[in-house]
Amino acid sequence: MHEKCGVVGIALQDRDAARPLYYSLYALQHRGQESAGIVTHDGFQQHSHVEMGLVGDVFDPDDLASLNGSNGIGHVRYPTAGSVDSCCAQPFSVSFKSGSLGLSHNGNLVNADEIRDELANFGHAFTSDGDTEVIAHDLARNLLEADLVRAVKRTMSRIHGSYALTISHDDTVMGVRDPEGNRPLCIGKLDDGYVLTSESAAIDTLDGELIRDVKPGELVVLHDDGTGFDSYQLVEQENTAHCFFEHVYFARPDSTIDDNLVYEVRRELGRKLWDESGVDSDVVLPVPDSGRAFASGYAEAAQESGADIEFAEGLMKNRYVGRTFIMPTQDERERAVRLKLNPIKSTIEGKTVTIIDDSIVRGTTSTQLIELLKDAGAEEVHVRIGAPAIISPCYMGIDMATRDELIAADRSIEEIRDKIQADSLSYLSVEAIAQSLDKGQDELCLGCVTGEYPYDIEGEETDRDVDRPVIGDQTMEADD
Amino acid sequence: MHEKCGVVGIALQDRDAARPLYYSLYALQHRGQESAGIVTHDGFQQHSHVEMGLVGDVFDPDDLASLNGSNGIGHVRYPTAGSVDSCCAQPFSVSFKSGSLGLSHNGNLVNADEIRDELANFGHAFTSDGDTEVIAHDLARNLLEADLVRAVKRTMSRIHGSYALTISHDDTVMGVRDPEGNRPLCIGKLDDGYVLTSESAAIDTLDGELIRDVKPGELVVLHDDGTGFDSYQLVEQENTAHCFFEHVYFARPDSTIDDNLVYEVRRELGRKLWDESGVDSDVVLPVPDSGRAFASGYAEAAQESGADIEFAEGLMKNRYVGRTFIMPTQDERERAVRLKLNPIKSTIEGKTVTIIDDSIVRGTTSTQLIELLKDAGAEEVHVRIGAPAIISPCYMGIDMATRDELIAADRSIEEIRDKIQADSLSYLSVEAIAQSLDKGQDELCLGCVTGEYPYDIEGEETDRDVDRPVIGDQTMEADD
Amino acid sequence: MHEKCGVVGIALQDRDAARPLYYSLYALQHRGQESAGIVTHDGFQQHSHVEMGLVGDVFDPDDLASLNGSNGIGHVRYPTAGSVDSCCAQPFSVSFKSGSLGLSHNGNLVNADEIRDELANFGHAFTSDGDTEVIAHDLARNLLEADLVRAVKRTMSRIHGSYALTISHDDTVMGVRDPEGNRPLCIGKLDDGYVLTSESAAIDTLDGELIRDVKPGELVVLHDDGTGFDSYQLVEQENTAHCFFEHVYFARPDSTIDDNLVYEVRRELGRKLWDESGVDSDVVLPVPDSGRAFASGYAEAAQESGADIEFAEGLMKNRYVGRTFIMPTQDERERAVRLKLNPIKSTIEGKTVTIIDDSIVRGTTSTQLIELLKDAGAEEVHVRIGAPAIISPCYMGIDMATRDELIAADRSIEEIRDKIQADSLSYLSVEAIAQSLDKGQDELCLGCVTGEYPYDIEGEETDRDVDRPVIGDQTMEADD
Amino acid sequence: MHEKCGVVGIALQDRDAARPLYYSLYALQHRGQESAGIVTHDGFQQHSHVEMGLVGDVFDPDDLASLNGSNGIGHVRYPTAGSVDSCCAQPFSVSFKSGSLGLSHNGNLVNADEIRDELANFGHAFTSDGDTEVIAHDLARNLLEADLVRAVKRTMSRIHGSYALTISHDDTVMGVRDPEGNRPLCIGKLDDGYVLTSESAAIDTLDGELIRDVKPGELVVLHDDGTGFDSYQLVEQENTAHCFFEHVYFARPDSTIDDNLVYEVRRELGRKLWDESGVDSDVVLPVPDSGRAFASGYAEAAQESGADIEFAEGLMKNRYVGRTFIMPTQDERERAVRLKLNPIKSTIEGKTVTIIDDSIVRGTTSTQLIELLKDAGAEEVHVRIGAPAIISPCYMGIDMATRDELIAADRSIEEIRDKIQADSLSYLSVEAIAQSLDKGQDELCLGCVTGEYPYDIEGEETDRDVDRPVIGDQTMEADD
Repeated sequence: MHEKCGVVGIALQDRDAARPLYYSLYALQHRGQESAGIVTHDGFQQHSHVEMGLVGDVFDPDDLASLNGSNGIGHVRYPTAGSVDSCCAQPFSVSFKSGSLGLSHNGNLVNADEIRDELANFGHAFTSDGDTEVIAHDLARNLLEADLVRAVKRTMSRIHGSYALTISHDDTVMGVRDPEGNRPLCIGKLDDGYVLTSESAAIDTLDGELIRDVKPGELVVLHDDGTGFDSYQLVEQENTAHCFFEHVYFARPDSTIDDNLVYEVRRELGRKLWDESGVDSDVVLPVPDSGRAFASGYAEAAQESGADIEFAEGLMKNRYVGRTFIMPTQDERERAVRLKLNPIKSTIEGKTVTIIDDSIVRGTTSTQLIELLKDAGAEEVHVRIGAPAIISPCYMGIDMATRDELIAADRSIEEIRDKIQADSLSYLSVEAIAQSLDKGQDELCLGCVTGEYPYDIEGEETDRDVDRPVIGDQTMEADD
Repeated sequence: MHEKCGVVGIALQDRDAARPLYYSLYALQHRGQESAGIVTHDGFQQHSHVEMGLVGDVFDPDDLASLNGSNGIGHVRYPTAGSVDSCCAQPFSVSFKSGSLGLSHNGNLVNADEIRDELANFGHAFTSDGDTEVIAHDLARNLLEADLVRAVKRTMSRIHGSYALTISHDDTVMGVRDPEGNRPLCIGKLDDGYVLTSESAAIDTLDGELIRDVKPGELVVLHDDGTGFDSYQLVEQENTAHCFFEHVYFARPDSTIDDNLVYEVRRELGRKLWDESGVDSDVVLPVPDSGRAFASGYAEAAQESGADIEFAEGLMKNRYVGRTFIMPTQDERERAVRLKLNPIKSTIEGKTVTIIDDSIVRGTTSTQLIELLKDAGAEEVHVRIGAPAIISPCYMGIDMATRDELIAADRSIEEIRDKIQADSLSYLSVEAIAQSLDKGQDELCLGCVTGEYPYDIEGEETDRDVDRPVIGDQTMEADD
Repeated sequence: MHEKCGVVGIALQDRDAARPLYYSLYALQHRGQESAGIVTHDGFQQHSHVEMGLVGDVFDPDDLASLNGSNGIGHVRYPTAGSVDSCCAQPFSVSFKSGSLGLSHNGNLVNADEIRDELANFGHAFTSDGDTEVIAHDLARNLLEADLVRAVKRTMSRIHGSYALTISHDDTVMGVRDPEGNRPLCIGKLDDGYVLTSESAAIDTLDGELIRDVKPGELVVLHDDGTGFDSYQLVEQENTAHCFFEHVYFARPDSTIDDNLVYEVRRELGRKLWDESGVDSDVVLPVPDSGRAFASGYAEAAQESGADIEFAEGLMKNRYVGRTFIMPTQDERERAVRLKLNPIKSTIEGKTVTIIDDSIVRGTTSTQLIELLKDAGAEEVHVRIGAPAIISPCYMGIDMATRDELIAADRSIEEIRDKIQADSLSYLSVEAIAQSLDKGQDELCLGCVTGEYPYDIEGEETDRDVDRPVIGDQTMEADD
Repeated sequence: MHEKCGVVGIALQDRDAARPLYYSLYALQHRGQESAGIVTHDGFQQHSHVEMGLVGDVFDPDDLASLNGSNGIGHVRYPTAGSVDSCCAQPFSVSFKSGSLGLSHNGNLVNADEIRDELANFGHAFTSDGDTEVIAHDLARNLLEADLVRAVKRTMSRIHGSYALTISHDDTVMGVRDPEGNRPLCIGKLDDGYVLTSESAAIDTLDGELIRDVKPGELVVLHDDGTGFDSYQLVEQENTAHCFFEHVYFARPDSTIDDNLVYEVRRELGRKLWDESGVDSDVVLPVPDSGRAFASGYAEAAQESGADIEFAEGLMKNRYVGRTFIMPTQDERERAVRLKLNPIKSTIEGKTVTIIDDSIVRGTTSTQLIELLKDAGAEEVHVRIGAPAIISPCYMGIDMATRDELIAADRSIEEIRDKIQADSLSYLSVEAIAQSLDKGQDELCLGCVTGEYPYDIEGEETDRDVDRPVIGDQTMEADD
């Protein structure tokens, strides 16, 4: 599973934005490892540096020095399995009638093809297959006849789907969040400027303060001189569709998203997991690194309830996992999972064990891990998952897997338990998710765990009757 | 001095075009060493591989294998002094309403900015500063309302300047030459298909036959099935403006351009050089490799006239010149020119020497070379140049130098001779160029040697009264 | 601080050793990231592949396929600050009179220069400055007149210092550990062979079983056919000098070294840390990843003692730390430590905090971290270190720092506390280390924390009176 | 065919040797394209930079800046077909009892294995299979007991075969040539120092003067302060065995070797070729670049004899030949030869043609070229080769081909002519070679064209009765 992107935009008072953008991208690196890019504007011209690779490899000090200007945006992009395509690296930048545009996009449009066709009918030609180029062309077109805010509003009324965008129009930096608020975006204050970014951890990295989340349907325009920002509620909508998986899996534990600190959400989910399906065992092990906060909440709730369960870091993760590596073939005696995770025998041998993770996607790793634990002497292995079962793909910007690959797509919990050879298996309920996030289920996108989506997706069910998005006739007023 | 580009387009009967395109680009490598690219179409989709680097480095066998389809185009691009910009590598490819377009361009438009502005007024957004993207967008726009031939005609009526284009529209490959015929383009027949290319040497490489040059203002559309081609004379114009420098410097000696074999032109220019300004000396030395054919014609004419002049290869060129290399600084004792050219002492010592070259651009190399020859024992060093003095920059697609850098821009021949410390110096006359090419001076672009250009260039004089280009209302008929 | 190397040697029954060697090196990657290499022997000839870089970058599948033979050795090497020198990458391989030798070395000789000089007096010429080449030449020389076991014994009688070696002599693989047992080396059994390696986690990776540690002064020779091994106690010595820092810092938590599982040692050190200097605070935070096991033991002991202290993962480590990255300069507003570690505010704000780490080397990071925690709202920050203060450099194979750089070299604990601005600071006692490892202090190398070394090092004190190493006249017997 | 190496050594008065060494290697690049290296010594320590690749790619300005010292040596190495082995790149450098040694070697020993075995018996261990390491170890060993000159003499008395060596012993640079003078080496004087190098063209590059060839069996020691050199005639021998192929093929035309300017030798060979086997034809074409000087001599002699033969550059060579390139497979319609050489039709069509080349190795290219010329309209194609037929491999340092691959190994001239489909074919006689070089046949190594070698090579005949090398008891005297 991969988050598809991370975005950032910065406006400063009197220093170049390139380095803060660089550090922000480094803080967002977990959201995309395929490519990285920065676009700045120095008041006269746009500067751009976009390449395939990790943030630390894409930029050298000379690159940063050449990215002049106190305003700019940045992007990190996810890795795809197969063909790496440099043409889709972002920020995407174009010049048009009234200047230059740079776009960084996290999300996925559901009607990109329609808009592309409409624009093609006007003669537009496209260099890529990406949604971002479609948004850029549409926005450029609207800017022919409207001011910046109205142009963005028009484009928002046309595009449907999930998007958190940072945009640079010459030296103006802004951020937009889709009317459902599906992908995260927040505003931060620095000593000498403002920042828009996917996750608040990037603001921390710059020693800034999180102000608040960008609201669903809101446009935030940073002042060019780094002294403030204006807010425009361009689209108003009854229901939001926040992605709950950001909290469960993607976001950094130290980020606050839609008013919830991710680390505390995960601890709470862990506590609820004990409440819903706690199982007596000698030891509780997190699957590192993702299961750690869940397991700590789970163990805490267990201990509070009087259960005699030890919490232990019994699985050692190889720090180098994730880099280039030749995996063993199926014939080879070495087990793939053991190159990533090695059990610490003393914590397992002769004991009943509960392992806590955030999800099971295909089930392969879980099966191998349980076998490994039993070989290491575990008497029982119970599996507790801090989220509901994933039964359906994500269409809104996360690279999960196809439905065929999802172990839970067409299996009951008991069938999954049997397949992975666990002694018991429980997932967390959808209700627990909503409670932990302090949101109604109708405020969340739960498509991947319910099969009902808050967007009209061909071949999938919709979870709502309301036509969405509904664009209100709200007035546009700066609130800052 | 650098040619700015080489282009090729191929349609075959029943094999993939990628390898023949690759060999063609290899044959055209002298026209551009910065980037190389191939775009093919297999009837269903377009395939593209474009990278910075030499042809041999850009493509590996897997790359060629993935470029499916029996129709396609290719491009090599020149190196620029400073920043290497991967976004301008070609072929440039876009998708638009009615399919895909690929463009390879050699030349330079004089009104690209105007057309870009017009298109921007329609809402077009551009990813690069290049002429090629402007042509692509204009063509895509015209294809909304017109068939292919009429759309090309419309675009040709709008763009002014020099261009030899190969274009792929889905699996249709075509070639267009500007109404003045400034940049070269020719048609060749292969055993199993047709080829359009900047120089006939590329056709030879494929064991094909040169059919003829593409005419100024002509569109040639290759049949998708490789069985023939159609010709459309889209623009008719009284005067052509063939670049004479292709013959003098850029083109391969084994190429035939506008009915003249380059090698024979250079020999003839050498003969005329003797006739106009032959000087008695013991030995004639070509400056390799470019001066060789001139020197052989010069020596032949001299010997026929009864002069007792030896022709000798007295300057040894280091084969590795042109690759990465740390040049000596001015302080260092090693002379830069000697790393490239080393005199063979026995051919020079105690002799009067005439060196023959095709041009003097800045004069630095000539000065160093003459000093080197005198140090090696030459008693006199006479310089004869097989072209007129370059007094003005090229705006039509050749990277010569700025006016400030041109030694002849503001110096008399005598001043140049004095500066380079030659015993005598002569250039060839403009008349001799026209005669050798069997063309009138008004059929040639002589801007760089006369300062009067056949195009309207801001700040430069025009050599003609006729409004150009004049677009006739010729009918469009296939003549093949 | 860097471990200087990891070594491995494998003999299999009937499959190539290259892939298991590769997976072993991947498991040992934390011991060296500068270079990686594998040498195998197929019965007829030696194959070698050694390059600068991480294991995953150094080898591709073709490289592994070309490393034929069921016997071989491998090596990973540490990164140095300045010049990266490819000549010192290992295994070091030479051919000599009676065949080929490959050597992988972890450790540091104290008399390499003397032996180099002796060999130079016999006419030996050296391609590198490394200890390993000295050992190789000495061994090759001894093999002229002695069988393998006697030759190794002779070489061991000559070299002094720390060494864990895996050696291949043609297709015979062996392992040797220095008489003090300073660097770790252990033996494992696979389904179809035997393995010698720095850490048992590499054996786990191959789904093998740890048999035992190689004893100080022992030579273990694996049978060429992978069916067993012979042991020769070549040197016997009263006192060992096991490096305690392997347990505290370098080794993986899931490795067992000298009969102690590293994870349990660290938990026990954490418990002792509470016993010795526990401080009441609201929350205990590990500095990830190294402080985690200590903190868990500390918190457990605290809770058992009735203290009301929460254990929380309150510091988020950026997973990409350690890769290429441009650090902020001192002028920049971004704090270097925050790019690596970000506090989770909810766990800290308004609370008294104890952070647990394994060591303080220069103090820079600690100072920044404490400031960061206070800025995040911590009311008090107490620091507890799971090892004694490092007051002196390591000469036995660890790249710590120079004495000048060590914060504790010339400061009292109170001075250090003041410098890093902690509210309190305690280190663990040397006694606690020895107890936790179930060893006497005279069985450990404690040079870096006592300043008294178990080796004669110029300019440093020795902690023992016995002349070392003492080579007994023990008989050589295979015990397997 | 490839020359195996180029060597250089330089001692300067008061500037660093790195840049002059770099320019020398660039001038010698044609002698080796696989690797390049420089070793310098600054009086205190040795500096070395050796890498795979072309000179221009191996060194950047920082590399040169770090190679301190006014004395040093350099090396370029040939490319091999298959495995590129970085361990054999040179200069080879070692440290030993009395300092450091650097060696650059051009040539091939016939008794390297014997000496390696002897040294191995003394305990020496070798990191490579190369001759150079053997020479280095032997020299280091001799330096234990003898001064520099005597040590070199002893080593020369032990090694048999071809060698031109530049050696650095700390900051002393010297050059040695084998007693037969098989490989070239010469001395040059710079403004501020002295240079030893394979070819005099490298001296020209440094604006120096060729003094003379190093004599067979001579040791030349450059003064460390760049003020002069000493000569020691260490071995005296009746017969030399100069490689005639240096003149015919390998060396640059502008180099003087053993008193003969290569360009003039080739012209003279061309003249003799006309005298021996001139054939009447309309035009004479050189095969570029190697056949050019031969053809010019041939044409000149023909014209002097009254024959009406035109000399024309009728074959265009692609300048990019020699770089990475995917060659056509046999099935493909494109002809491999045509990618390298394209005939200029006007010089060939309807004419009888003589092509002049320096050698035919396997015959493949000749066959394709003749077919190409006939397809281009040549009525007859005569082939004249400026050297005798190669019937046997080279063992002395040139990578020609195996005997099986040599077209002339087991074919008569008529059979070869028939195979390549030439209308006539003649080689030059061995006598003509000797006369042109002004040497006796017994002063030349003619093994590849006679099958009789001036060295004892297993399985080959020797051309002399004298025992060689005979080491005289000459006194050692500096002659400078």
